[in-house]
Amino acid sequence: MSPRIYLDHAATTPLHPEVWASMSDIQASGFGNPSSIHHEGRFARTLIEEARKTLARYLNASLGEVFFTSCGTESNNMILTGAVRDLGVTRILTSHIEHPCVTQTVRYLEKQYGIDVVWVPLLADGRTDTTGLHHILAREPQTRTMVSLMHVNNEVGVINDLAEIGGLCRQFNALFHTDAVQSIGFQPFDVATIPVDFVGGSAHKFYGPKGCGFVYIRAGIGIRPYLHGGSQERNMRAGTENTLGIHGMGTALAIAQREGSERNRTIAQLRKTLREALVHDVPGVTFNEAPDPWQSPKILSVNFPPSPRTDLLLMHLDIEGISASGGSACSSGAEVASPVLQYLSIPDGTKTLRFSFSPANSVEEMVQVSHVLQRLMVAP
Amino acid sequence: MSPRIYLDHAATTPLHPEVWASMSDIQASGFGNPSSIHHEGRFARTLIEEARKTLARYLNASLGEVFFTSCGTESNNMILTGAVRDLGVTRILTSHIEHPCVTQTVRYLEKQYGIDVVWVPLLADGRTDTTGLHHILAREPQTRTMVSLMHVNNEVGVINDLAEIGGLCRQFNALFHTDAVQSIGFQPFDVATIPVDFVGGSAHKFYGPKGCGFVYIRAGIGIRPYLHGGSQERNMRAGTENTLGIHGMGTALAIAQREGSERNRTIAQLRKTLREALVHDVPGVTFNEAPDPWQSPKILSVNFPPSPRTDLLLMHLDIEGISASGGSACSSGAEVASPVLQYLSIPDGTKTLRFSFSPANSVEEMVQVSHVLQRLMVAP
Repeated sequence: MSPRIYLDHAATTPLHPEVWASMSDIQASGFGNPSSIHHEGRFARTLIEEARKTLARYLNASLGEVFFTSCGTESNNMILTGAVRDLGVTRILTSHIEHPCVTQTVRYLEKQYGIDVVWVPLLADGRTDTTGLHHILAREPQTRTMVSLMHVNNEVGVINDLAEIGGLCRQFNALFHTDAVQSIGFQPFDVATIPVDFVGGSAHKFYGPKGCGFVYIRAGIGIRPYLHGGSQERNMRAGTENTLGIHGMGTALAIAQREGSERNRTIAQLRKTLREALVHDVPGVTFNEAPDPWQSPKILSVNFPPSPRTDLLLMHLDIEGISASGGSACSSGAEVASPVLQYLSIPDGTKTLRFSFSPANSVEEMVQVSHVLQRLMVAP
Repeated sequence: MSPRIYLDHAATTPLHPEVWASMSDIQASGFGNPSSIHHEGRFARTLIEEARKTLARYLNASLGEVFFTSCGTESNNMILTGAVRDLGVTRILTSHIEHPCVTQTVRYLEKQYGIDVVWVPLLADGRTDTTGLHHILAREPQTRTMVSLMHVNNEVGVINDLAEIGGLCRQFNALFHTDAVQSIGFQPFDVATIPVDFVGGSAHKFYGPKGCGFVYIRAGIGIRPYLHGGSQERNMRAGTENTLGIHGMGTALAIAQREGSERNRTIAQLRKTLREALVHDVPGVTFNEAPDPWQSPKILSVNFPPSPRTDLLLMHLDIEGISASGGSACSSGAEVASPVLQYLSIPDGTKTLRFSFSPANSVEEMVQVSHVLQRLMVAP
C-alpha cells in the first residue's frame, strides 16, 4: 500500500519533528508549575518566557503584549468578549466568512450584550470590500466600534489587506482585531506596520501542538481575563500554563521564522503544480482564489463540475489514500456545503474541495492526486 | 550532588512514564483534526472517544456527560458561568478556601450578573460546616441556588463529605458543583452515589499533561458553551481538540484506576513518615489536617514555629534541593501567606508549608527532609 497523501494542512498540521524533539527534551525536566518558586517551577517559567520572546520577536511586539491561551478559539473568544465587556464596544463589524469562533462569538455577544453586528461586504473572491468597510465606518463614527476581519481565510486562502483595513480603523477610531490563525507561521506579521490592536493565533496550524494558542493585545488596551482564577499570564489568563505546548509553539514559530519565505516558495510550487494538473486532467474545474499577492499558497480551493462521483468525492479520495477537505474541518462531519462558501461566487452545482499544503508534500504527490481525481471524475 | 526531592505534587505532577510513552506512540499518527472525516481525522476522533470512555468509567458516568476542556480553571469557569447565565442561578454558596478559579469566578459573576454570594462556614480544619450549610440552604429555599464546594482542599488536603453536601443540595433543590481537581486520580468518584451535578478536573494533577481538563455535567442539565465557535464536544466546547493531551489524560486516569487504593496506601505511608519525623525532629510543629477518613494522604500541611529561618524557609529548602510550597502554586511568587490559610485555625506567628507526595517519593526522602528542616530550624 502506498503511503497516504495528506493535503489538509489548513485543518491541522502534524508536529514538526524538531517541535516534537524539543517537547521531548523538556517533558521530564520542565514539568514544574511555573507559578512555583522552587527550582522546578523556575525552570518551567524560563521555558514559557523564552517562548514568549520568540512570539514577540515574530510579531515585532513587546513581551508584555503576548499572552498564551489554549487555542485560537479561546484567543478570539477572549478578545471579542473583552472588547464588548471591558472596552465599551457596542458595534462589531465582521464578515460572513470569518471562522466560526468569530462569527459564533459575535452572535453570542449580540444576544447576550445587545451589540450591533454589521456584516462587512466582500469582494467576489472573499476579500474584504474595503470601500464598503469605509462607508460603514463613516456612517456612525461616534459608535464605539471593533472591526474583526481575518488575515488569511481558512477555506479559500484569500488574504485581506490588513494594512489598509487597519488604516481605516485608525482613521475612524475603531478597534481592530484579526484572526490570524491561518497566517501566523506563513505570512510575516509585523504589528509595528500593521495597525492592529488584537491578534489571535494557534500553534497546531503551524506545525506546533494542539491545545496551545496566543493573543497579541496592543499595549495600553485594558481588557480583563476571560478565564478567572490564579494570577498566571500577568493576571490575564488563569490556569496552570501548558508548558509543553507553549514550548512546542515557540519552537514551531522559531522554525517558521528561520524557514521564512522558503516555506511559502515550496508550497506555492506545490499549489501551482496541482492547479495546472487539475486544469489539464479534469475538464471544467474552477478555483476560488484571489489575484497575486492576495492568495495564500497554503490553500487551493477547487470547484468540481457535477458528475456521478462529486457528491461523495471526499470519501472516494479518502479511500484512495488522499486526505482533503470540503470547506473547513471545523464545519465537521457530513459532506455538507460549508456555510462560508455560500457567500463566495461559486459556480452553481459544483462541489468545492480544499487542498492545503505543507513543505513535506511533494510535486509527485500533486501529479498523483490530479490523476486520481481525473479517474474519479470520468469513471462511470 | 544528590538528586532533588520534589514534594509539590499538589501544585503539579510530572508525566507518568506510561503517559509520556502513550503520547509518544500517537503524536505522529494521531495528529489529524478530529473534526475531519478522512482517515487521519477519524483516527484522532477514536483516540478522543477512547479517552472519554476512560473518564466516564472512572466517574461511573455516561459518555454524554463528559466534556474535555483546556484545564481545571476553564472547567470551573465554564460550569459556574453556565449555571448563572443559562440555568437562572442567582445565588452561589461557596467557601473562602476554594481554589481561586472558583472564588475569582464567583466574584466576577457577583459583579457582572449581580448574583448573591454566600460564604459557607467552615469547621476549624477547613471542611465544610454542613450544619451551617443546611441553615443557609433552608433560609431561602425558593432562590435558584448553586453550591460550589471542593472535594479535596489544595492547601491542606481535607476532604469534604460530598455525599452529605450533595444530599443537602438535593433536599433543597440546589445545583451542586465540586472542584475535584485535587481528588480525581486519588479518591474514588462515583457520580451514581455522589449527588453532584457538575465536576471539574485537571490532568496535570494526576500525572497527566498540562493543558487538559474535563467537566462532568449531569445528563439533562443544559448549559451552553463557554467557548463559542465550532461544533466540537457536541457543541459544548469549541476549539480543535488537544488530542495528545486528551489521550495522555485518558492514559493517566486508566493508570490511576489500575493502581486504585495502592497509590493512596503508598503516599499515606510517606505522609505518616514525614509527619512523625517532623514531630520528632522539629519541636513545636503542628499540622493542618482533618481526622480520618477526611484527610487526603497527598498533602501534609505543617505549621513551623517562629525562628530566624522560618521567613525564608521555602527558599532555604529549595537551596537544599527540596521543593515544597507555601500554600498553593497558584498564589504564586513571593512567600506571602496564602489568603486561604487565614480562614483556617492556624497558630499565630507560625509559617505554613505544604508537602505533597507521589508514589515515586521514598520513605528515605521523608527522613532526609525532616533532618534538613531540623537543621534549618535550630541553626542560628
